[in-house]
Amino acid sequence: MGFPRATVSLPGWVEEFLPDPNRDYPTEEDRMRLVIELSHLNVDQGTGGPFGAGIFDLSTNRLVAPGVNLVATTNLSAAHAEVVAIMISQQVVGHFDLGGEGLPAYELVTSTEPCAMCFGAIPWSGVRRLVCGAREEDARRIGFDEGPKTPAWVASLEQRGISVARDVCRDEAAAVLRYYAEKGGMIYNARQGA
Amino acid sequence: MGFPRATVSLPGWVEEFLPDPNRDYPTEEDRMRLVIELSHLNVDQGTGGPFGAGIFDLSTNRLVAPGVNLVATTNLSAAHAEVVAIMISQQVVGHFDLGGEGLPAYELVTSTEPCAMCFGAIPWSGVRRLVCGAREEDARRIGFDEGPKTPAWVASLEQRGISVARDVCRDEAAAVLRYYAEKGGMIYNARQGA
Repeated sequence: MGFPRATVSLPGWVEEFLPDPNRDYPTEEDRMRLVIELSHLNVDQGTGGPFGAGIFDLSTNRLVAPGVNLVATTNLSAAHAEVVAIMISQQVVGHFDLGGEGLPAYELVTSTEPCAMCFGAIPWSGVRRLVCGAREEDARRIGFDEGPKTPAWVASLEQRGISVARDVCRDEAAAVLRYYAEKGGMIYNARQGA
Repeated sequence: MGFPRATVSLPGWVEEFLPDPNRDYPTEEDRMRLVIELSHLNVDQGTGGPFGAGIFDLSTNRLVAPGVNLVATTNLSAAHAEVVAIMISQQVVGHFDLGGEGLPAYELVTSTEPCAMCFGAIPWSGVRRLVCGAREEDARRIGFDEGPKTPAWVASLEQRGISVARDVCRDEAAAVLRYYAEKGGMIYNARQGA
């Protein structure tokens, strides 16, 4: 029957933009600024929605893999920045559990708090920490339906041993959301047909 | 820097197993039995966890694309059966919104109720209906951490125009979960390291 495959790969500009892989990002703000810059470039390059993410190795403070929103360019509704960063990092590390035996602690940094899907993807990914920039309501304000997340989402991650930091460079992150809306960026909620 | 790509493709046995693409599956039970059989074969073939899914076109009752759990074989924690079926179907249809303009209604049939991630992926996918076999607690009973789903998950889908049917062939679906556990199948929850 020949079912197609689904492939998630980073746009060429991401690798061109990223500096030296040996660079380290010692603070949470350093790491957040990188993913906010990715979110901004993703808008300017026209490769997706205004969202960036990255997985960092907390033993070295280096980037394992970045992610940007690629929903419209890949035709994959699951290709949110967080899921892209997780998927590519799991290929880099060679394991589906980034919290597996013998691995350092990995952190997911995301320019906007996870939607319901990305939130649910985090416990499966193996990351030990989540750092968020803009709030969910900043994304909702420009029209995205972030989905039905349990109100106790932060506590439910922490119960699973995943620490959470919020509002890291929130203003800079939210500014990219507004920039996208002002440019008339597509709000790709589903069920747009009749 | 050469970041790898992440690819989701169906194992060869899926296409060999699937009958005529023109076959139709007129009832919910017909569609569920197909995805339960996929979940069972996925265990026997050793290609992943005991979960199967499929997207069906409700205007023709035909299968658009199937999905099976491929977490361990792809090293992708997001490669749950539902996400795989959604991703492959979006490539078949050529759109990230299966509920887009001019498209028929699509239904996601899953052998076990969605985990928190797959639940969050459903509103983004564009499907108009969800049909579930085994209950979340059947998966939890064999050790899977299904994640923190909002207790009002069914209502929150229905509010978005996605109808939900539960317990369709639940016993047959749950039997595959028990079969996997009895065979000593891997329970691939994350953060297995220290």
